[in-house]
Amino acid sequence: MNTERKIIIIPGDGIGKEVTNEAVKVIEHINHSSCDVVNYEYFNRDADFYLEHGYILKDSDIKSLTDGVDGILFGAIGDPRIPNMEHGRELLLKLRQSLDLYVNFRPIRAVSNCYSPLKENRVEGADMVIFRENTQGLYTQVGGSVAGVDGTQAAMDTAYYSTHSVDRIIREAFEWAVANDRRRVDLVDKANAVTNIGQLWRTRFRKISKEFNHIETGEHYIDAYCQRMVSDPRSIDVVVSSNLFGDILGDLGAGVVGGLGITPSANINPQSGIALFEPVHGSAPDIAGKGIANPVASLYSLALLYDHLRLDKWGKRITAAVDEYLQMASSHKTPDLGGEAGTSDVTEQIISLIDV
Amino acid sequence: MNTERKIIIIPGDGIGKEVTNEAVKVIEHINHSSCDVVNYEYFNRDADFYLEHGYILKDSDIKSLTDGVDGILFGAIGDPRIPNMEHGRELLLKLRQSLDLYVNFRPIRAVSNCYSPLKENRVEGADMVIFRENTQGLYTQVGGSVAGVDGTQAAMDTAYYSTHSVDRIIREAFEWAVANDRRRVDLVDKANAVTNIGQLWRTRFRKISKEFNHIETGEHYIDAYCQRMVSDPRSIDVVVSSNLFGDILGDLGAGVVGGLGITPSANINPQSGIALFEPVHGSAPDIAGKGIANPVASLYSLALLYDHLRLDKWGKRITAAVDEYLQMASSHKTPDLGGEAGTSDVTEQIISLIDV
Ligand SMILES: CC(C)[C@H](C(=O)O)[C@@H](O)C(=O)O
Ligand SMILES: CC(C)[C@H](C(=O)O)[C@@H](O)C(=O)O
Repeated sequence: MNTERKIIIIPGDGIGKEVTNEAVKVIEHINHSSCDVVNYEYFNRDADFYLEHGYILKDSDIKSLTDGVDGILFGAIGDPRIPNMEHGRELLLKLRQSLDLYVNFRPIRAVSNCYSPLKENRVEGADMVIFRENTQGLYTQVGGSVAGVDGTQAAMDTAYYSTHSVDRIIREAFEWAVANDRRRVDLVDKANAVTNIGQLWRTRFRKISKEFNHIETGEHYIDAYCQRMVSDPRSIDVVVSSNLFGDILGDLGAGVVGGLGITPSANINPQSGIALFEPVHGSAPDIAGKGIANPVASLYSLALLYDHLRLDKWGKRITAAVDEYLQMASSHKTPDLGGEAGTSDVTEQIISLIDV
Repeated sequence: MNTERKIIIIPGDGIGKEVTNEAVKVIEHINHSSCDVVNYEYFNRDADFYLEHGYILKDSDIKSLTDGVDGILFGAIGDPRIPNMEHGRELLLKLRQSLDLYVNFRPIRAVSNCYSPLKENRVEGADMVIFRENTQGLYTQVGGSVAGVDGTQAAMDTAYYSTHSVDRIIREAFEWAVANDRRRVDLVDKANAVTNIGQLWRTRFRKISKEFNHIETGEHYIDAYCQRMVSDPRSIDVVVSSNLFGDILGDLGAGVVGGLGITPSANINPQSGIALFEPVHGSAPDIAGKGIANPVASLYSLALLYDHLRLDKWGKRITAAVDEYLQMASSHKTPDLGGEAGTSDVTEQIISLIDV
């Protein structure tokens, strides 16, 4: 079947530009060697744009990111000139909100033990998937601060969850678990201290889990679960959690299997079909422009994008090629993985491993 | 100098009863072999008490825990019959609030590499201290939930911080760093998403850090910091964080160096001098009553208690004895550390290592 798809590429800042560039090489390679053509356009918004224009994303931009678009590939955002990542927050969080990308999907696999800080017998075979709720919780920006005349101040931020948001992410986690032959879904929260939201999640989790009675379930506190993630990551299967705890578990999990440089993520709205794919890593200003950024997380993200485009044949092949590459000796790797290879060397090696 | 002190022991539930029992053996040993006598009384509130009386701690109990009392040794709380740890929350959180134990102090050391899930070259020598703010943040129980007629529901929990609370914990971290020859204090928050509270902490942190200009500082996001804690724990020195993030970092750190079974913590009000010491681990109902609970975290907690009583001579000796014991072959250990020893065997070994 001959298919044509269109995606948008948002390189962002720092190494985001470099790693998306590598992803484009893989797209070109597949475009030239098959009938599965993916066309791409760039949406170049970055720190420079923000500093010049004072904004990074307008509501009116949204149309160009969705009309006739089958997916978005994102690099990374963040620049030392902009404190607290204001522009990154504006861009990423606004995209998640306005496109209602409520599923943050983070698959975490120990592809090769040698990158993990953990002892081999602790991490080998770890294969977990985090479903992070991506629109509410502490990310709603509800809050403010009050100043007293005496110079004192108080600040508040409110975490908010509705059954609507909680239900749809929980359901997504269970449905994915069923479709992918997984055994268990764990809910991770802090219901013993953050009681109202904790109660809501637990009630809905129990209710929805009844519809999936082949799937085992667990309910855990975030503090103990982080401890478990480092001491026994292989015991973790599918996890569903709030925006904040999902963020923490996703990064921690990436650290457990060997760093942010190799972990992809997806932000998906399963109803509308709009989805944005990005490495878990940031823009790494310290190594930007040196040609040594690790493109692996971006290429895994691209694989997820091909899956999403219903070109999972290519998703599988890219993933297999990157897996195979990661198992090679470390001399073939970028410095973050202990080697001396450059960014484009890595992509070349991976492309040569893609079955066409 | 002949000194007499009085402490209260709250064994709590499950293995809490067992491990505090071991701590008492050490107290008795020191009482008999020196003039530094520590008298103790029990405050026996546990799940049974809660199930019988419907409460676990009344305001009127507080007096007996403070009048003429120099410190509190706590075991652990939690019972499978009581969902969401209602009684634990009531007891622990109420004590922290009503005694205003605003410093949660969690020293985390890689005493022996063999218990850590991390590769030896990643963890060896790790030595970090977490200062967790212990009274506000998401633990204020401000919030609620609303139900719609259509069966939908929304829940809210508000994180709250005042300059007063933020300042005193930040100051405590810096003062401790100076007194203990530490190099750096890191602030860990999520200022890029939880903006109002993030802003307050960062502003006060920068202001207060100016008074301690020999100490380096860092400002980090919790997600990236968790990743760092597992990939490079030796790069972490002193950390100050909110109630929720401090809770997470404390447990994660314990996991990184080898499990909750060996990590102590303290809840302190430096002004009033009231303080409560407890293992980081819970009541472990699955192994309670079997005589195989690991008393190490409780004995380290006891060492912190002796420090607090200005009997740091004994604090140091207990710590040294436990350190030495932990470096022994694993056959001398309880099952959680890979051995077959029982709880009281461990204490016997440790007592024999205490210099008297
Ligand atoms: C029991 C629970 C509410 C408590 C907390 O989160 O503070 C515990 O995890 C702790 O750290 O002592
Ligand atoms: C930039 C930041 C607000 C963001 C988040 O916390 O969601 C990032 O950490 C992520 O996970 O994409």
